[in-house]
Amino acid sequence: SKIQATLIPGDGIGPEITKAVTAVLDHMGQPFEWDVQQAGMAGIDAEGVPLPQNTIDSIRRTNLALKGPLTTPVGGGFTSINLQLRQEFELFANVRPTKTIKTDGRYDNVDMVIFRENLEGYYIADEGYIEHNGDPEGKVYSTGYNTKEEARRITRAAFDYAVANGRKKVSIVHKANILKLLSGMFLEEAREIAKEYEGKVAWDERIVDACAMQMVMYPDDFDVIVTTNLFGDILSDLAAGLVGGLGLAPGANIGKDAAIFEAVHGSAPDIAGQQKANPCAFLMAAGLMLEHVGKTDDAERLRKAVIGTVQAKDRVTPDLGGTGNTMSIAEAIMDRL
Amino acid sequence: SKIQATLIPGDGIGPEITKAVTAVLDHMGQPFEWDVQQAGMAGIDAEGVPLPQNTIDSIRRTNLALKGPLTTPVGGGFTSINLQLRQEFELFANVRPTKTIKTDGRYDNVDMVIFRENLEGYYIADEGYIEHNGDPEGKVYSTGYNTKEEARRITRAAFDYAVANGRKKVSIVHKANILKLLSGMFLEEAREIAKEYEGKVAWDERIVDACAMQMVMYPDDFDVIVTTNLFGDILSDLAAGLVGGLGLAPGANIGKDAAIFEAVHGSAPDIAGQQKANPCAFLMAAGLMLEHVGKTDDAERLRKAVIGTVQAKDRVTPDLGGTGNTMSIAEAIMDRL
Ligand SMILES: CC(C)[C@H](C(=O)O)[C@@H](O)C(=O)O
Ligand SMILES: CC(C)[C@H](C(=O)O)[C@@H](O)C(=O)O
Repeated sequence: SKIQATLIPGDGIGPEITKAVTAVLDHMGQPFEWDVQQAGMAGIDAEGVPLPQNTIDSIRRTNLALKGPLTTPVGGGFTSINLQLRQEFELFANVRPTKTIKTDGRYDNVDMVIFRENLEGYYIADEGYIEHNGDPEGKVYSTGYNTKEEARRITRAAFDYAVANGRKKVSIVHKANILKLLSGMFLEEAREIAKEYEGKVAWDERIVDACAMQMVMYPDDFDVIVTTNLFGDILSDLAAGLVGGLGLAPGANIGKDAAIFEAVHGSAPDIAGQQKANPCAFLMAAGLMLEHVGKTDDAERLRKAVIGTVQAKDRVTPDLGGTGNTMSIAEAIMDRL
Repeated sequence: SKIQATLIPGDGIGPEITKAVTAVLDHMGQPFEWDVQQAGMAGIDAEGVPLPQNTIDSIRRTNLALKGPLTTPVGGGFTSINLQLRQEFELFANVRPTKTIKTDGRYDNVDMVIFRENLEGYYIADEGYIEHNGDPEGKVYSTGYNTKEEARRITRAAFDYAVANGRKKVSIVHKANILKLLSGMFLEEAREIAKEYEGKVAWDERIVDACAMQMVMYPDDFDVIVTTNLFGDILSDLAAGLVGGLGLAPGANIGKDAAIFEAVHGSAPDIAGQQKANPCAFLMAAGLMLEHVGKTDDAERLRKAVIGTVQAKDRVTPDLGGTGNTMSIAEAIMDRL
């Protein structure tokens, strides 16, 4: 029987890459029964708000979503819809696997997975103005929060993943030399969790600035990384850069109950509706989703077909070195399946 | 007449790389008259504290210092001595030039200069515990501050530098989509300053995560970068990674009155006293210092000699691909001068 899941096509190139993904999944026997819902600008169009209650209700029911890129409306004080979804469904882990696929780049053997704490830190900062030099808005403050609870939960998720996937090492990334409490607490809790995995998986710790340098110089030295929200945001994109950008980068937002899978790239309004968008990152996100629901064989088949197509440059989009379009690359992938 | 300057040999490999630097500068006619002072562990040994009053007084008098790597004692609640110096002398700009020197790496044409706000942000966070789940230390808060004043001062410094050095572009790096006030204010002020340079130098703006990715993918696209403290810390080291690490990376901490120049690397206690340390980053820091006091010809001569030596692998240390030592590389540089 099929697995109930929410499908959010999203904005900009979202609908066309969604079509490519559903076509490929249909071709694979379609493991999911989709409840299509809107969010972002499409949410405003359909129901007047960027994150409609129907969309929330659907995910609350299915606990599983594949989400296209969303445009957060500018101005009007809207907070990022991605952030709202993370908070709403307590999606505590942002998981970003990064692996070399196109081997014609600068880096050949990148293979790392970043576990980013997804609910706390400076991402939920309370901010405000303070009078300064006679200017009532001359100074701003920004207060972030971390809890032991989430530090432990994300670290455990990273170590559990490492053990389950035969990964060799977990790197704990922090800035405890400066943020003695905020990052210091994270480091201490992470160290404690690490001890529980003694003999099962190795670990080390890195200061975030040095880590950024080392990722660029010695990416082979990284396997699983666990860190706080803002550092994880920066390092995940840095990692994507090592393998050629966001064109193949999927992300998972995982909670205790629900999980939302996404391509990491944006909605690219400039090329929307022109069949120029590369659907591979979104397909890779579908791959993570298949893995998440235990369909590991399907996940592996899909991933192999995407990677094979990209490596062969078979009917791929211009950003991948071809002259194809959104649907032609989906067809190439289906031919390989 | 010679220029009065404070010389802080520092800890670990500090004294031996300092010898190499003074030897090279002596060979150049020694533009500086050094007042040698201690800090770090050497400060504790000499005067019982990591940042002795004599050292502070000396810099207060000379307004100019060349500082070796310092070890901040672990435990005992010591704050980083580098941070103390920045605050004490109001060194508002951390300037990190990064240029490809060894062309056998992954990146050939890196040439960027990062201007990092050096006094504010999360680097001066007030932190504390909050009760959570019955644990009095279950949650931590961390409050950072930014002022319009410093946002404007660092941005102006970056644009002035760009104009004075014929640089093509300034990139303003922020995370205003999340830190709407802390980073948002920085972005707004920086945009305003940018307008004053209309027609003199181009500028763009980047979100820090995307910026990290782009630096890795398209380093040619960067020229001058200006950003807040914590982002600057991470991106400066990332940039150093693009050109092979910290072995040639100098940094300047610039205030209205005083300026302190440093190699960016640490004190490397594991190899201290063995003549294994590479003094080139510290020599490049001396080069920045010469430039700062208007001795641009000397600065250029010194830099050329260091770069020539490194590129020819002439008597260089193992980290630079040779079998030489700290003094032999200094001698090679002197031969070239
Ligand atoms: C869109 C933005 C709010 C988001 C973030 O900063 O977390 C994105 O960069 C990401 O990493 O998912
Ligand atoms: C030593 C440390 C406190 C310092 C910092 O974080 O600023 C260093 O990384 C730097 O960039 O100068």
